Amino acid sequence: MALCGDDHKRLLNRINRIEGQVRGLRKMVENDRDCFEVLKQIAATNGAMHSLGMFILEDHLKGCVSETLRDREKHDALINQVMDIFNRLSK
Amino acid sequence: MALCGDDHKRLLNRINRIEGQVRGLRKMVENDRDCFEVLKQIAATNGAMHSLGMFILEDHLKGCVSETLRDREKHDALINQVMDIFNRLSK
Amino acid sequence: MALCGDDHKRLLNRINRIEGQVRGLRKMVENDRDCFEVLKQIAATNGAMHSLGMFILEDHLKGCVSETLRDREKHDALINQVMDIFNRLSK
Amino acid sequence: MALCGDDHKRLLNRINRIEGQVRGLRKMVENDRDCFEVLKQIAATNGAMHSLGMFILEDHLKGCVSETLRDREKHDALINQVMDIFNRLSK
Repeated sequence: MALCGDDHKRLLNRINRIEGQVRGLRKMVENDRDCFEVLKQIAATNGAMHSLGMFILEDHLKGCVSETLRDREKHDALINQVMDIFNRLSK
Repeated sequence: MALCGDDHKRLLNRINRIEGQVRGLRKMVENDRDCFEVLKQIAATNGAMHSLGMFILEDHLKGCVSETLRDREKHDALINQVMDIFNRLSK
Repeated sequence: MALCGDDHKRLLNRINRIEGQVRGLRKMVENDRDCFEVLKQIAATNGAMHSLGMFILEDHLKGCVSETLRDREKHDALINQVMDIFNRLSK
Repeated sequence: MALCGDDHKRLLNRINRIEGQVRGLRKMVENDRDCFEVLKQIAATNGAMHSLGMFILEDHLKGCVSETLRDREKHDALINQVMDIFNRLSK
């Protein structure tokens, strides 16, 4: 089950922005910036990443899932994957 | 309060690795990889980022804090910052 | 969509145990126990609660969802609920 | 390091309210209430618990810590405890 929807481009834009945040973080460390500013940048980057994950998961569940669900076995496999991801993302 | 300790280089290495993870993530999306693989990569990157934050916070509390704490007012300001950061990181 | 499965009893047992943990917490505070012991108890109780939530969600998705999913509109409503709950639980 | 401040009573009130939330949760399961309502109750209880933990930690750091910090060895032990609790609460 690959990414679906025509949101590919929007997705890449979000990832590019996160890459920019990480580069910003490195710059802050190189320039020996205040410790709490660095930590805020980390928290912000994590927040952006987490909401990207939520967006992908929602998009996936809404867009690609339908056919899977007609098949009982695939359905169970999907639920297992969803729960596994939930557990990883909520840590 | 800037970053302290001689761990600057180790810190930059960890940030570089995280940058690599984000680039890997973009590659996965570009190549239309399986949705759950993408989500696992996001969760792993978030985990690396979170533990980087914990590392910086610990390093900071251990290394730079001492003199601050002799001063009551600065002490309270520091605790407020710590609680603020922890609230951001635990979201 | 109510709880399904015959796991009602097991569920109540888990909730009873959590109630016991909260009562234990109160006792610790009444007895003026060490602050970090209290915080560990809070973290343990939260962990038990979180995994109870995951268990209920999984049970629900696996057991009750099938018929819902044949209906496109209900399907979307379900996904919205799942994402909403996940956002609440991962905070 | 026990709980300090005269906030003992307020603390117990908060714990009592959380106990009430858990009892409410059990009632909901007994009455076979809608699954997502149950999950919202779990998320709300977890939120109350988490912010109780934050409150206790902040109170502790502000109120009881000062003398500890004059002693280098105790200081390091304290920081270790704080980081350990952060890690537990942010899971």
